[in-house]
Amino acid sequence: MTATRGETRARLLDTALGLFTVHGVEGTSLQMIADALGVTKAAVYYHFRTKDEITEAVAEPAVRELVGMLDHAATMARPGARADYLIDGFVDLVVRNRVLVAVLCSDPGVIRTIDRIMHGDESVMLRLPAMLIGPDADESALVAAHVALAGVAMAGGSPALAVLDDEALRHHLAAAMRRLTGRPRRP
Amino acid sequence: MTATRGETRARLLDTALGLFTVHGVEGTSLQMIADALGVTKAAVYYHFRTKDEITEAVAEPAVRELVGMLDHAATMARPGARADYLIDGFVDLVVRNRVLVAVLCSDPGVIRTIDRIMHGDESVMLRLPAMLIGPDADESALVAAHVALAGVAMAGGSPALAVLDDEALRHHLAAAMRRLTGRPRRP
Repeated sequence: MTATRGETRARLLDTALGLFTVHGVEGTSLQMIADALGVTKAAVYYHFRTKDEITEAVAEPAVRELVGMLDHAATMARPGARADYLIDGFVDLVVRNRVLVAVLCSDPGVIRTIDRIMHGDESVMLRLPAMLIGPDADESALVAAHVALAGVAMAGGSPALAVLDDEALRHHLAAAMRRLTGRPRRP
Repeated sequence: MTATRGETRARLLDTALGLFTVHGVEGTSLQMIADALGVTKAAVYYHFRTKDEITEAVAEPAVRELVGMLDHAATMARPGARADYLIDGFVDLVVRNRVLVAVLCSDPGVIRTIDRIMHGDESVMLRLPAMLIGPDADESALVAAHVALAGVAMAGGSPALAVLDDEALRHHLAAAMRRLTGRPRRP
């Protein structure tokens, strides 16, 4: 029984993500992905023409989810409810994709890829902090929002916190983010 | 008048750091560094045999400074004073090296380089959060410390905050870090 095209593609993206976390996106070549899969580079080419296409495919589901979250948040009238929704949603996205989000946030090549996926849209990276703190927030709140978002994304993928299970990590990350954005503590 | 060896080395490290921020460390080759400097690859080899040596040379001053800070903090008896000292010191290091620290914190290759610079010593990346919150801190404080450190390092290098001058950035980052680590607000 041979793997279907969809299965092979999924396995290829998993392998690519694993290599990205060790070598960085820009330090991972198509040849390295082929070697790790035990296939030829031609077999990789069958699915993706360039590494950028692979990076896009790895990043796309999470980026689309984030954009959906921002679009929904934009419909919410109360700033507090909007912040709560974004905190819970962002933390949950990070925890469900522990390693992925840290890789996406840190690699300069990936930031460009995300902008390409979202071409035409305002950058997710600018929209997210602005929505979290509202349009009238001061400089201090903007810096805190950037610390919260980058910190949660990076800490979520940190090997030092890999011992925590998803539930504990989700709880503590949300608490840190609430503290930084001035939202009241949850009971 | 020709540049001295020391001047050329400093220019080479500056150029390398600039390329690292755009392409990531692993995405930057010796050839790219040579091209950006307008010299041959042989001229780069005269100063550094491998890219790892360049990465080490770029990272070393900041890493040594951080280790010195941790060593000094270890001599302080009061946990609160120790946390204050580390918050001010870390934020100041980030602000003085806005781009560098974000690059260092995000690239998996650099984390390995830092461990190599510090061989024998306990990892800076594990020592720093532990010293910041003390030995008896709970899981929640540990997660908050990781969010604070990664968040400050990444936000300090964020293009979205590049408009802030050093003084304002230092002030707001320290405030965010104090909030996350439960230190009282400064007047």
